[in-house]
Amino acid sequence: MKTVVLLSGGIDSTVLLADRIDRGDHCLALTIDYGQTHNREIGAAQQVAAHYDVVWRLAPLTLGGSALTGQGEIPVGHAEHVDATYVPGRNIVMIAIAAAIAEQCGAAAVLFGANREDAAGYPDCRPKFISAIDAAVSLGTARGISVHAPFASLTKTNIVALGKHLGVPFDLTWSCYRGWSVPCGRCGACAANEQAGL
Amino acid sequence: MKTVVLLSGGIDSTVLLADRIDRGDHCLALTIDYGQTHNREIGAAQQVAAHYDVVWRLAPLTLGGSALTGQGEIPVGHAEHVDATYVPGRNIVMIAIAAAIAEQCGAAAVLFGANREDAAGYPDCRPKFISAIDAAVSLGTARGISVHAPFASLTKTNIVALGKHLGVPFDLTWSCYRGWSVPCGRCGACAANEQAGL
Repeated sequence: MKTVVLLSGGIDSTVLLADRIDRGDHCLALTIDYGQTHNREIGAAQQVAAHYDVVWRLAPLTLGGSALTGQGEIPVGHAEHVDATYVPGRNIVMIAIAAAIAEQCGAAAVLFGANREDAAGYPDCRPKFISAIDAAVSLGTARGISVHAPFASLTKTNIVALGKHLGVPFDLTWSCYRGWSVPCGRCGACAANEQAGL
Repeated sequence: MKTVVLLSGGIDSTVLLADRIDRGDHCLALTIDYGQTHNREIGAAQQVAAHYDVVWRLAPLTLGGSALTGQGEIPVGHAEHVDATYVPGRNIVMIAIAAAIAEQCGAAAVLFGANREDAAGYPDCRPKFISAIDAAVSLGTARGISVHAPFASLTKTNIVALGKHLGVPFDLTWSCYRGWSVPCGRCGACAANEQAGL
């Protein structure tokens, strides 16, 4: 199956790409430059795509209103309600762009790497949202593109374990929400990686 | 109510803006530059927004794969199935960007001007799609933004009549799919306007 995989350059989407290649999908990796202050992840995505020798596309987009785009402080750990690192509308727009590209290039599906723990702080990672955007994209495209988050029921620990099994080059990925030269070790993304044993 | 109105610069979205202002909405007009060859409509949108003295935002976006973005011939009239002027994923992406902006600026809803006749040739104008994207955007945003196409059951003739009632400056709008200095008189958009008595 030909698929468009949203690749942030972090662990979840990298393992997702590795898993789909392992399952025989013909993947196009799509990274969105939405003004994230931790734009080191874009270089990581490019390296991951090169490692797997898949076509990589970088699409620009201007979003805002989040700690990840420079508005407000990046919190320590993850929130129980909507996180300060929630970027208003981000996943809706990223999935929409991926769907447009899928429709153009003959891909059947858009895949993104939301995991079970994302659902707490990010409304655009919740299973109900994923089902709803799948329905909307399927109805709104001429070829009925589908949208899936195959890791929606997995924890970061499960995903890391799958990645290790698949030989994923974790050293090429970038997770930290801060744009420093080394991971901060304190933000939600760093905390999740540490908890998952990375 | 604060709303984001997708304003192409054509008749439907212009009448929609006029109607919402008439109903007391506080509107932000959003125009998307998606590489349309008939980019005269962008200037028209700006003039319409200035006429109504509303905030106007122009967002860039790269789409393709349509006669409207230079791939293939613009057909005479409108098709019964998917039209050559269907831009893959366009309305999904435009609605997504509008939702992101709505979420950022405190608007409650995204409005777009799909009409009853659009449903035939454009999957992303059909009532089922509109309901589905409304559900997805509502679930995927922290503030539960809604998406409506208030003219989905109206014909172009109905919309033109409403516009005349509201005193809409039709001379500021641009509908023709060709980017010439005067409307071609033959494309689907020109045909629809003529049929509606403009």
